[in-house]
Amino acid sequence: MLSCGFRRLFLLANFSRGITSKHFHLGAASCSSSWGSRKSVGKVEFLVNRLKDVEKLSTMAGQQDGEVDIETVLAPLRASVKEQGDLVRQMKEGGTPAHDIKRAVVELKARKKALEEKELALTSIGEKFDRAKMEDTLKRRFYYDQSYAIYGGVSGLYDFGPTGCAMKANFINIWRNHFIIEEGMLEVDSAILAPENVFKASGHVERFADFMVKDGKTGECFRADHLLQSYLEKLGAAKKVTEELKKEYQTVISHLETYGKDELTELFRKYQVKSPTTNNDLSDPMEFNLMFATAIGPAGNMPGYLRPETAQGIFVNFKRLLEFNQGRLPFGAAQIGTAFRNEISPRSGLLRVREFTMCEIEHFIDPSNKDHPKFDTVANLAIPLFPVDRQVGGLSPITMTIGEAVEKGMIKSRVLGYFMGRTFLFMIKVGIDPKKLRFRQHMFNEMAHYATDCWDAETKTSYGWVECVGNADRSCYDLTCHAKHSKVAMVAEKKLPEPKTIDITEAAPVKSVMGKAFKKDAKIVVEHLTSLEADRLADLEKALTDNSEATVEVNGKSFKLTPDMLKINRYQKTVHVEEFTPSVIEPSFGVGRILYSILEHNFKVRENDEQRTYFTLPPIIAPYKCCVLPLSSNKDFEPLVKTLAQALSNASISHKVDSSSGSIGRRYARTDEISVPFCITVDFDSLKEPHTVTLRDRDTFEQVRTLVSDVADIIRDLSSDKIRWSDVLAKYPKFEGQQEKDQ
Amino acid sequence: MLSCGFRRLFLLANFSRGITSKHFHLGAASCSSSWGSRKSVGKVEFLVNRLKDVEKLSTMAGQQDGEVDIETVLAPLRASVKEQGDLVRQMKEGGTPAHDIKRAVVELKARKKALEEKELALTSIGEKFDRAKMEDTLKRRFYYDQSYAIYGGVSGLYDFGPTGCAMKANFINIWRNHFIIEEGMLEVDSAILAPENVFKASGHVERFADFMVKDGKTGECFRADHLLQSYLEKLGAAKKVTEELKKEYQTVISHLETYGKDELTELFRKYQVKSPTTNNDLSDPMEFNLMFATAIGPAGNMPGYLRPETAQGIFVNFKRLLEFNQGRLPFGAAQIGTAFRNEISPRSGLLRVREFTMCEIEHFIDPSNKDHPKFDTVANLAIPLFPVDRQVGGLSPITMTIGEAVEKGMIKSRVLGYFMGRTFLFMIKVGIDPKKLRFRQHMFNEMAHYATDCWDAETKTSYGWVECVGNADRSCYDLTCHAKHSKVAMVAEKKLPEPKTIDITEAAPVKSVMGKAFKKDAKIVVEHLTSLEADRLADLEKALTDNSEATVEVNGKSFKLTPDMLKINRYQKTVHVEEFTPSVIEPSFGVGRILYSILEHNFKVRENDEQRTYFTLPPIIAPYKCCVLPLSSNKDFEPLVKTLAQALSNASISHKVDSSSGSIGRRYARTDEISVPFCITVDFDSLKEPHTVTLRDRDTFEQVRTLVSDVADIIRDLSSDKIRWSDVLAKYPKFEGQQEKDQ
Repeated sequence: MLSCGFRRLFLLANFSRGITSKHFHLGAASCSSSWGSRKSVGKVEFLVNRLKDVEKLSTMAGQQDGEVDIETVLAPLRASVKEQGDLVRQMKEGGTPAHDIKRAVVELKARKKALEEKELALTSIGEKFDRAKMEDTLKRRFYYDQSYAIYGGVSGLYDFGPTGCAMKANFINIWRNHFIIEEGMLEVDSAILAPENVFKASGHVERFADFMVKDGKTGECFRADHLLQSYLEKLGAAKKVTEELKKEYQTVISHLETYGKDELTELFRKYQVKSPTTNNDLSDPMEFNLMFATAIGPAGNMPGYLRPETAQGIFVNFKRLLEFNQGRLPFGAAQIGTAFRNEISPRSGLLRVREFTMCEIEHFIDPSNKDHPKFDTVANLAIPLFPVDRQVGGLSPITMTIGEAVEKGMIKSRVLGYFMGRTFLFMIKVGIDPKKLRFRQHMFNEMAHYATDCWDAETKTSYGWVECVGNADRSCYDLTCHAKHSKVAMVAEKKLPEPKTIDITEAAPVKSVMGKAFKKDAKIVVEHLTSLEADRLADLEKALTDNSEATVEVNGKSFKLTPDMLKINRYQKTVHVEEFTPSVIEPSFGVGRILYSILEHNFKVRENDEQRTYFTLPPIIAPYKCCVLPLSSNKDFEPLVKTLAQALSNASISHKVDSSSGSIGRRYARTDEISVPFCITVDFDSLKEPHTVTLRDRDTFEQVRTLVSDVADIIRDLSSDKIRWSDVLAKYPKFEGQQEKDQ
Repeated sequence: MLSCGFRRLFLLANFSRGITSKHFHLGAASCSSSWGSRKSVGKVEFLVNRLKDVEKLSTMAGQQDGEVDIETVLAPLRASVKEQGDLVRQMKEGGTPAHDIKRAVVELKARKKALEEKELALTSIGEKFDRAKMEDTLKRRFYYDQSYAIYGGVSGLYDFGPTGCAMKANFINIWRNHFIIEEGMLEVDSAILAPENVFKASGHVERFADFMVKDGKTGECFRADHLLQSYLEKLGAAKKVTEELKKEYQTVISHLETYGKDELTELFRKYQVKSPTTNNDLSDPMEFNLMFATAIGPAGNMPGYLRPETAQGIFVNFKRLLEFNQGRLPFGAAQIGTAFRNEISPRSGLLRVREFTMCEIEHFIDPSNKDHPKFDTVANLAIPLFPVDRQVGGLSPITMTIGEAVEKGMIKSRVLGYFMGRTFLFMIKVGIDPKKLRFRQHMFNEMAHYATDCWDAETKTSYGWVECVGNADRSCYDLTCHAKHSKVAMVAEKKLPEPKTIDITEAAPVKSVMGKAFKKDAKIVVEHLTSLEADRLADLEKALTDNSEATVEVNGKSFKLTPDMLKINRYQKTVHVEEFTPSVIEPSFGVGRILYSILEHNFKVRENDEQRTYFTLPPIIAPYKCCVLPLSSNKDFEPLVKTLAQALSNASISHKVDSSSGSIGRRYARTDEISVPFCITVDFDSLKEPHTVTLRDRDTFEQVRTLVSDVADIIRDLSSDKIRWSDVLAKYPKFEGQQEKDQ
């Protein structure tokens, strides 16, 4: 039943693709409400403090929206969504045919999209973010850049440089601590290459595809929906176009993501779309599978793929993991690794790429018990939720505690709520602006029948709302698919409250007779018969009794059975355990997308100096924790600089030393650009005993004076979230010396 | 000049392949001599102490060799190697034709191999290592196992389970701290997918291949040398075979790795080798490229490969990295990542696989200054060296300080010696047995002309000596190749001691005239002329003066030049800097091979209990740092167990809780199997205030009693190499209580 694969395919299809034209919604307005009680959330306290810093800093950067005007403009759009949402509900309740409902849902989505786009445009007016400026800093300071640029580059592939790479390594360490170590999860590191049957089972071979069109002469390929959109936008922008046509084009564009192959074909023909580069004719839209194919081994008879997600590597190891966990549920398994998607037209920088890192969790549970033992630790955490009913009602997200959302049935289970809370805490910890984060629930048509609930953590960026983390209750779908294709049972056992007696009906084929009748096919017929359920066996038995023969189909062949071939045994058995296929909760993190969002949310320009860009990355994720700067190139500073660098190395603190000849102000600016949160400066006072240095905070410019012997410990504690800058300020004397003038 | 690529290809070819039949040499005997002064090596002290532990433990495990007997047996083999080694030297000195020398070297290698095999067999007699038993533990405790087993498995692909994965993650963190953070290296994380031209430049497209033969009917493929070896071994083992034939077969086998395509073809025909599975005829040996191929993008016109090593990702980013480093040399760049090789017949577990993790460093230096500023920190470190002259002299490795080896010219530069020292310290830190580690220098025929020196760190395992780390001085080869293919300059600048005046000779083509004469080809002719060196320009000028015309060849076409087309400008210029192509020192680590060696070196069986297996992994790399065990399932223990687990989580210490119902002894045994170095046991005394627990050391069975509030800090310090078990023993009271009887 590969149609069951659709939900996963949908999620996948979204994951590394530009959400640019898809999900837009409101920013700061609705997310500013109160947070849950700090006491009850325990370790959250630190993050709540961090949140306050973030708020202070963004206010400093002057982000304000004109909320009143915005709501006036949006009111009719909200009403229009609500109207259509109500209609869809009525149709469903009234038993309208599915086909008509589908059409109404398409219209609903188009209206939602119009609302979201408008809202995003309006709420972004007050923001000063300059993407080109940020990208310039990222490139100059080698956070990441296009791969193979010296050979002309390959689109959709990026190399992380020293800054980005260290940030990514920190991200992964934080993730591993926050999820794997803190939750005692079982980590796996499975192969990237996989044989075809794995992805046949998962549904990727058949369904993991996008539509493309091909230039009839050059063979150049374009993603069908992207091309159609830019083509119609161009037509709509022409001078002589009528208002009516403009509207028609807009309608097509807003419905783009709902079109299938036939509808796209029709539209390409209707508008006579040509290749934008050659003006040649194009092929009809065709499906293109997004997995990279290769051949494993030299013989060429084992087709393989690069995995498009890391999750399957957990599912295929389920039995080993269950055994490692001594047969007990629940347990979480996790994988951090690279996945690949052969995008037709990669774009939007790190948001839609061909090679990317994922962190995925599969939390296996007994479907009859969707609780989590640590639910209480997140129950009072308030997070911005955008449930389906608010989406179809034209409303904004709402901030609510997880406990309340579960109680109201908005979030369908405590275990799912738990992971949403942990996801929220993680996102804040690594530097996502909580005002630009929301959890959007999947709409009915986004979710396959087996998924019971799904919430995407989305971040607001200059590309719109971006899906960064999927939190899905996928029921037992994945294990069931693999069990079916591999013929290996994927079940767990649980002890029954008390032993029970069950009736067994069992086929006992008479092999000697069947061997004579069916020769080498006897084996598969025997296998078929012994795999039959009780009902089907009873039918067979009746047919054999009534007609003295019966026919079964195995592997497309018919076999005529006679009564001497089959005995049916019936007996009772006492069982103490029962087998079941576990359900799975899947939080799935796209690392590149989150890193990009962190960079956008923390990109700043110094007041009064447009050229001084910096990133307010939390110390825990900053590439280098500190920089050691001698005030000048005076030789006397060298021994202290060396001592400091060695002390930092010994404490495994990543750091830089900048003893180049630039002014101290220029060197501070350079460290700001690579997000160094703290600078240690060796000045003339440092030469006196006891040796001291100044310590500078990137975000506030504040400086204190501390002992050389203390500084490595301070940096270590600051950069592992043990203390905050305010703790340092409270303990050490503030320094306002000669360096200030350079800032 | 792709023949220049041979050295890299050779290294590559070795790297993930079984070195089983290649490098064998002596084990403990020669490596037992003294270590360098502890004071001068600074941070080495901890490792030296660890070394002592290792020695103590291996003596406990009863590893002893009968050295006298072994040397008697080996004496004639040593003499035979020396004889041939002397002959080769004489031939070289006497100017014997290269062809004859080559033949003599082949014979020398065969004799070396015979000596090494014998030596390995003899020195292994005393060792109790049982590979099957270890593999059973690795499988049961899911360190790693074959990928996709539920689908029948794929050879050469392995999945790491919770234990192996945590061990690997720890390995990578230690590596990152030891090399990247400690040395201030620039880390990159470049794409796995690469377009074809990258590997054309590196030489992989043309030369990264093994020979295979194909079953004429089924298409099954075999690696030619492996098949020939097993075929001849079978022939030689037959009852009726003559001694003469036996010897012939052995000679062929010992020369296998030196045969080219023609020689292999001849041998396959001579012995009429058939397919071992079908007895069908085989094709002649053919080259099979070991890179996995795929197509990037939908159009199918961009062939791509999965990288077979991570190094190229550093070279293609050289310019960005140099800029990041403000244009200054030297600097080290590093990459940790996955690489792929489509092995024809993967085998030897983790030693020859199709997908593997590498940690590679490219340390870029000015070739005129091969020093390292921190050389003194390793100069007094004594490491086991196996230089070429000892290899060809039939001798054993020698333990010598790095300072002495560099002084004697054995190691060719201080910078290479520095990285060998750092490699040695790293290997000991992660748990390699120093008595099973050696640095083997490459022989003349293993090294391409551009490489000036190369030393492989090899570990002794049950598969023989395994190449785990390559330490090579690769001169400027790689950057030169990429500069040539990409047409992008790959150079650094250095300031001249004083400015100098140089003569410039410059072509000044007259474009207007050439445009008329050559039309659209004019551009390439102009480019060609401006790229010419002074000498060639002078020749052209002379031809134009003497004959009033001259012909140049560009892209296979001839163009006739006339005097009005070309002016030559000559002038002088003062320059302050000079450009040069940096040299590179490349330490390259194969993670899977080292992990496997660590497991072998640390696998132990308890005395008096053959069933109790364990691994003496150093705490720093052990998958879980500790396990919390309630003495029994008494409910009163639960709150303390919870408190301990939370304290460990808060300190980011990976741990397990085992509150299952087994006896404490059985549960200790289980933690031993997953290498948990320390167990915290909650017993009845723990319930009294102040709450205490026992802390047990895996390797010695010793236990102490400590406060519950202290235990997380103790474990953190023990597992980050800050303190050792002996420090704990000295500080806390030894416990000899009720748990002992279970061991």
